[in-house]
Amino acid sequence: MSLFLQVVSVSKAVEEVRNIAIRCGDEPVPLMEALHRILAQDVRADVDIPGFTRSVVDGFAVRAADTTGSSDAIPSMFTYRGRVVMGAFADTPVKPGECIYVPTGGILPEGADAVVMIENTEQIGGEILVKKSVAYGENVLLFNEDFSRGDVVCTRGKKLSPRDIGVLAAAGCIQVPVVRMPKVGIISTGNELVPVSKKPLPGQIRDVNSYVVASFVREQGCIPIFFGIIRDDRDALRSVIGKAAAECDAVLISGGSSKDDRDMVAVVIGELGEVLIHGIAIAPGKPTIIGRCRNIPLIGLPGHPASAFIVLIAIVSHLFAGMTGKTENSIRVVQATLGQNVASSKGREDYVRVAVRDGIATPVLGKSGLLNTLVQSTGVVRVPADSEGLETGTRVEVILW
Amino acid sequence: MSLFLQVVSVSKAVEEVRNIAIRCGDEPVPLMEALHRILAQDVRADVDIPGFTRSVVDGFAVRAADTTGSSDAIPSMFTYRGRVVMGAFADTPVKPGECIYVPTGGILPEGADAVVMIENTEQIGGEILVKKSVAYGENVLLFNEDFSRGDVVCTRGKKLSPRDIGVLAAAGCIQVPVVRMPKVGIISTGNELVPVSKKPLPGQIRDVNSYVVASFVREQGCIPIFFGIIRDDRDALRSVIGKAAAECDAVLISGGSSKDDRDMVAVVIGELGEVLIHGIAIAPGKPTIIGRCRNIPLIGLPGHPASAFIVLIAIVSHLFAGMTGKTENSIRVVQATLGQNVASSKGREDYVRVAVRDGIATPVLGKSGLLNTLVQSTGVVRVPADSEGLETGTRVEVILW
Repeated sequence: MSLFLQVVSVSKAVEEVRNIAIRCGDEPVPLMEALHRILAQDVRADVDIPGFTRSVVDGFAVRAADTTGSSDAIPSMFTYRGRVVMGAFADTPVKPGECIYVPTGGILPEGADAVVMIENTEQIGGEILVKKSVAYGENVLLFNEDFSRGDVVCTRGKKLSPRDIGVLAAAGCIQVPVVRMPKVGIISTGNELVPVSKKPLPGQIRDVNSYVVASFVREQGCIPIFFGIIRDDRDALRSVIGKAAAECDAVLISGGSSKDDRDMVAVVIGELGEVLIHGIAIAPGKPTIIGRCRNIPLIGLPGHPASAFIVLIAIVSHLFAGMTGKTENSIRVVQATLGQNVASSKGREDYVRVAVRDGIATPVLGKSGLLNTLVQSTGVVRVPADSEGLETGTRVEVILW
Repeated sequence: MSLFLQVVSVSKAVEEVRNIAIRCGDEPVPLMEALHRILAQDVRADVDIPGFTRSVVDGFAVRAADTTGSSDAIPSMFTYRGRVVMGAFADTPVKPGECIYVPTGGILPEGADAVVMIENTEQIGGEILVKKSVAYGENVLLFNEDFSRGDVVCTRGKKLSPRDIGVLAAAGCIQVPVVRMPKVGIISTGNELVPVSKKPLPGQIRDVNSYVVASFVREQGCIPIFFGIIRDDRDALRSVIGKAAAECDAVLISGGSSKDDRDMVAVVIGELGEVLIHGIAIAPGKPTIIGRCRNIPLIGLPGHPASAFIVLIAIVSHLFAGMTGKTENSIRVVQATLGQNVASSKGREDYVRVAVRDGIATPVLGKSGLLNTLVQSTGVVRVPADSEGLETGTRVEVILW
């Protein structure tokens, strides 16, 4: 067996996690609890929206053609024919030269096809002066202009935003078919790890990864389940990874992912199932393992939190997208202009931390292993594997944290 | 009393909500539950991070100067002096011309100041060939290079990301001082409203706002509390707004916010406390009320969901930021180039829906009252009040939904 990792490209690794991701089943949840869940099926409107032509302002319902040429200087005069009561039909249609007052949300009277805002009118006895012309349909929402009954209002795979929740409410979807949240087992390995509550002695470090990984998992809409800190002990590791694989939909193991003698995660995954990839051409994050055990994806992450985090963003987010059927990766990407040269090694994807301000992405200097650059940056710029670096002024995509 | 709204600028309205926002108190939460909460106090490292100089790769600890000029063609030869055991000190220091194997995370032996990755070495009997030079500090994290004991690792007012949670873990912050989540009362008013579970009859619409507003409130890190759908009845409205103000930290009332006879929200707020602003120069969203009752902010939102949503983003987000002491508004802004001309009325801020793709913001056409454009767009572009429109090619800021 080689002493070194046999690295594959990031795109190959992403393809592999997409490949082993099994979509979780569906479950209905009440609309009020559906925020940020992934929609499992297309949802259609059960009614026309709106179900009647309604005013979107307080004003006077008119025939638009009657207002042609109306202005402050030369207003048109309309005969006032009463008011529409909220939620009720007008008693009488609007005839040429007539108007009826209609409140915001009121049913547009028959005959009318637009509404003049009250701000653009003046009442003089029984007459209304209109000081501004309106076009057909202006200041009204027409019957089914938003959605027709049966239209898809929200497509499967969407991560539901507050706006989507609103549209589902309008469509009468009170029980929302969403994808079950994947349960993700979290294991930290390494003799040097101590719980966060302990002060580390020389040679020891706190178990930062359980917290970083769990928070990322939660942010991605999955449920983290902890299996604790495991020593570099092959039997203990095999036992806990097996248990996690039996109880979860995926397992993330951080630490012990390289090829040092004490790095046993790949060996144990091989014993429990199969190792598909060991080593990715990504920096930081090279010592990453992709494997599975009875259809459960097992991912070995680098022990260093900063490296592990890049792998979560670049690779593991795609695994979760596959498991939830999410159509848009929720990792946000924005365009920016690079503010300084960035050097990179050919043959691997470099993820360079940057701070974005006013459209300029400035690299945050410091070693990739530092936590402080991780919190001082607003995201990362991916330098492609075939590039030796990027020059100042290059348009880049920034993956926002 | 005027029939029309006395509008103020958006910046004046923002200033007013900032002014009436009272910061909620603090509470400690376990680190694992602190994700997305607002940090209430600066947190300092309780230890040096790292607490010892450690290798970030598997490789050979050396004196960097000894590797000068090493390459594949002309490697340098080092005497192998054994291995560092994880978590333990080396038995012997590294002297000139010597090397000691150190695993990722291992303590750097005395005398060494860098590590050569194992990939750049070759073992020949008791000698190690080094094929690449390293600089001082390369492939190691120096003692307290990340944070020194007592350094602030995370500042108050920050919304805690997974990376922040990691840094807090490293700093030993197992109970995190966060701001209490504001309780926000939610009321929908209007005779035309029916519960989402009902099919609306002509003239009726579903209560979309309770869902949109609650989801937004939740996304902003507050707790929504429902007070139901209230008819356009002054006594009923006064009673429920008073109850909500007594039980919550802020109250959002949607509908009835204009100056039609049946619009009683401003009148009732005036009876219970005071109306500070009635009408904002924003489109959509003009009929908005800002008031308070015994120090509790009361906001009257437009009845139309699409208008209400713009007011939530442009105004109410600042109220919540004030109540939580959040230093960064969590509304995300990105730069883009406008793909089409946008017309606007001078004297009001227009919020134009756009879809952003590859750095181009294309306006999503359709009336501002439509829900479908709300879900098809990725954000909004603010057209300033002193502008009559924006031309194609203008660099704009897009407020992402």
